[in-house]
Amino acid sequence: MPEFDLIARIQARAASRGDVVLGIGDDAAILRMPPGRDLVVAMDTLNSGVHFPEDTAPADIGWKSLAVNLSDLAAMAATPAWCTLSLSLPQPDAAWVDGFLDGFLALATQHEVALVGGDTTRGPLSVCVTVHGLVEPRGALRRKGARVDDDVWVTGTLGDAAGALRQWQAGEAITPALRARLDRPMPRVAAGRALAGIASACIDVSDGLLADLGHVCRASRIGAVLDVDALPASEALRRAFDRRTVRTLQSGGGDDYELCFTAPKTARLAIESASLACGAPATRIGRITADAGEIALHDAQGVAWSPPRRGYEHFGG
Amino acid sequence: MPEFDLIARIQARAASRGDVVLGIGDDAAILRMPPGRDLVVAMDTLNSGVHFPEDTAPADIGWKSLAVNLSDLAAMAATPAWCTLSLSLPQPDAAWVDGFLDGFLALATQHEVALVGGDTTRGPLSVCVTVHGLVEPRGALRRKGARVDDDVWVTGTLGDAAGALRQWQAGEAITPALRARLDRPMPRVAAGRALAGIASACIDVSDGLLADLGHVCRASRIGAVLDVDALPASEALRRAFDRRTVRTLQSGGGDDYELCFTAPKTARLAIESASLACGAPATRIGRITADAGEIALHDAQGVAWSPPRRGYEHFGG
Repeated sequence: MPEFDLIARIQARAASRGDVVLGIGDDAAILRMPPGRDLVVAMDTLNSGVHFPEDTAPADIGWKSLAVNLSDLAAMAATPAWCTLSLSLPQPDAAWVDGFLDGFLALATQHEVALVGGDTTRGPLSVCVTVHGLVEPRGALRRKGARVDDDVWVTGTLGDAAGALRQWQAGEAITPALRARLDRPMPRVAAGRALAGIASACIDVSDGLLADLGHVCRASRIGAVLDVDALPASEALRRAFDRRTVRTLQSGGGDDYELCFTAPKTARLAIESASLACGAPATRIGRITADAGEIALHDAQGVAWSPPRRGYEHFGG
Repeated sequence: MPEFDLIARIQARAASRGDVVLGIGDDAAILRMPPGRDLVVAMDTLNSGVHFPEDTAPADIGWKSLAVNLSDLAAMAATPAWCTLSLSLPQPDAAWVDGFLDGFLALATQHEVALVGGDTTRGPLSVCVTVHGLVEPRGALRRKGARVDDDVWVTGTLGDAAGALRQWQAGEAITPALRARLDRPMPRVAAGRALAGIASACIDVSDGLLADLGHVCRASRIGAVLDVDALPASEALRRAFDRRTVRTLQSGGGDDYELCFTAPKTARLAIESASLACGAPATRIGRITADAGEIALHDAQGVAWSPPRRGYEHFGG
C-alpha cells in the first residue's frame, strides 16, 4: 500500500473546522487566521523505543503524540486550532494507522483541533506532530516572568506516569491508573487558558518537575524552594510505592503533562476560582527565591531533602 | 551532551524576523500574523536511508530538508515566513548539528525564513520540518483548477536528480552538476509567487513528473497529453545518458523540485514575462485533455511513447 493510500485513509477520517480553507490533499494546507490573534506553534516527535515502549498500543501512541504537543500550547495559554502529522512507518500498515487514528483523533475531537496535513514516509516508527494555536497579543504565558516571592503551583498530581514506567522497567504488574497517566496524558488546555493574565510564568511538566521548573528558573533568573511533602500525589501512587520513592517520582518523574506555574501571592483566590472553573486542581508547592538557578527542597518539617542522583525518569530518554 | 545543549546551539545560530514575537527556547513559538493573509502550512520528513543515502553530508541533509518543504510552499504560491525543525539523532553529535545547520540556515537565509522552534530527540537519523508561509486569501495555487485545453508547463529542467541517483545506484562516478540537483534542490519560491493569478493549477515535482501531474489530473478531473521530447533537459543529463534513459529519468524521476503547472493558452505571454522576471525558465510540455486521470505521452514525431514499467525513481522510497 503506497503512501497515497495511507494519506487518503487519514484524510477520510480527519474532521475539519470552518477556518480550514484547504486541508489534507494538496501540497500544503491553507488556514484562515482570525484577526487580532497571534499564532502559537509547537512541534514534538515521539520515537519508538525512546519515547514509548515498542509494544505500546497504536491508539495510545496516537493519543500521546498529540497530547504532548497540546500540552505545550496549554503551557502558553493558547487555544488549539490545527495540527499536522508526519508518520514514519517501517511498512505501510493500514490496521496500525487505523488504531493510531483512533487515539489521535479522539483527542483532536476533544480539543476541536483539525488535522490539516503532513506526510507518511517509510522509516523506523516515529511520529512528529506540529500544533498551531491562537492567543491574544501579549496574552501568552512564558517561562520567564516569575518573580521573587511568587508562589509555585502545580496542577493535578505528579509522579503517576513515572510510577507506571518504574513498574514496567522492573517487570512488575502496572497499576492501571498509573498506566493510564503514562499512555493517555490529558493536556491541561483549559487550565492554561484560565491562567492567562493570572500566572507570571508557566511550563508543562514533561521532563520532570525539577527539570522543568529549572527551565523557568533559568528563563526568569530566579530560584525556588519547594515543600516535597506538598507535592500532590494520587492515591494510586501512594499505594504503589513507599514514601521515599513517591517523592522521587514526583520531583523527578516526567510525562505527567501537568502545568507548573508561578503567580504572586495576591493571585491565590483568582487561581482557586480558575482551578474550580476549569476542573483542574491546583496545589501550592513552594515559592520563588532570589537564588538564581537553585531549587531547594525540604519536607513538611523543614528538613532539607535531596532526590537520588538520577535526575529524572523519562522512558529511555 | 543533553538535548538542551543542542537546542541552545541551534538557538544561537537561528536568525529572527520582526514578526517573531517569541522564537526558540520556550514551550512554543509566538508569531505575529500580518492582517489579511492566510496561513499556509506544509510538513515533510526525510529519513536516513530512505530519502537520502546514509553517507550524505550533514549540510546537504540540512539544505534538502528545508528545500523540500519550501518547494511545497512554492507550489501554493505562498511566501515563506517561519519554520520549525524536529531532529532525531542516534547520539547528540554537536559537529553533525553544526554541519546540518550550515546547509539548513543557508537556505533559510536565502528565503528569509526564521527557524522558530521544534525539538531534538534521540532516535534513528530523521529530520522533520514544518514550514509556514503567507498568501492572500484566494491567492494560492492548488492541484485542482486545470481545465481542458490548458497548456502544461514545467520550470527548469527535469531528470537531473534522478540521473545522479541512477549513477550512484550503479556505483558510477556521479556527474557533479547532477549531484548538486539531488543534494541541493532550489525550491521555486519566486516562480510560484509569480504564477499566482496566472496558473490554473500547480504542483511541485517531488515524486516524478508523471506521478505529480497525475495528482493534478485526479484533483482537477482531467487528463493530459505530453510531448516527451519537449521535456526540458540539462546539458549534463544529455551528456550522461542515452536518449531513452533521459526520457525515462525526465518523466519518472523525482527530487527535482521544479514546478509543474497548467494555464490557459491566453496566458502564454504572461508566463514568459513572469518566467523572465523571476529567472526561472518555463517550458510548455503538453496540454490538458478531457481523458480524466489519463496521461498520454508522444515524441516529437507524434509517436506514442511509454516509460519502462518501473514507475518512478525515488531514493529507496
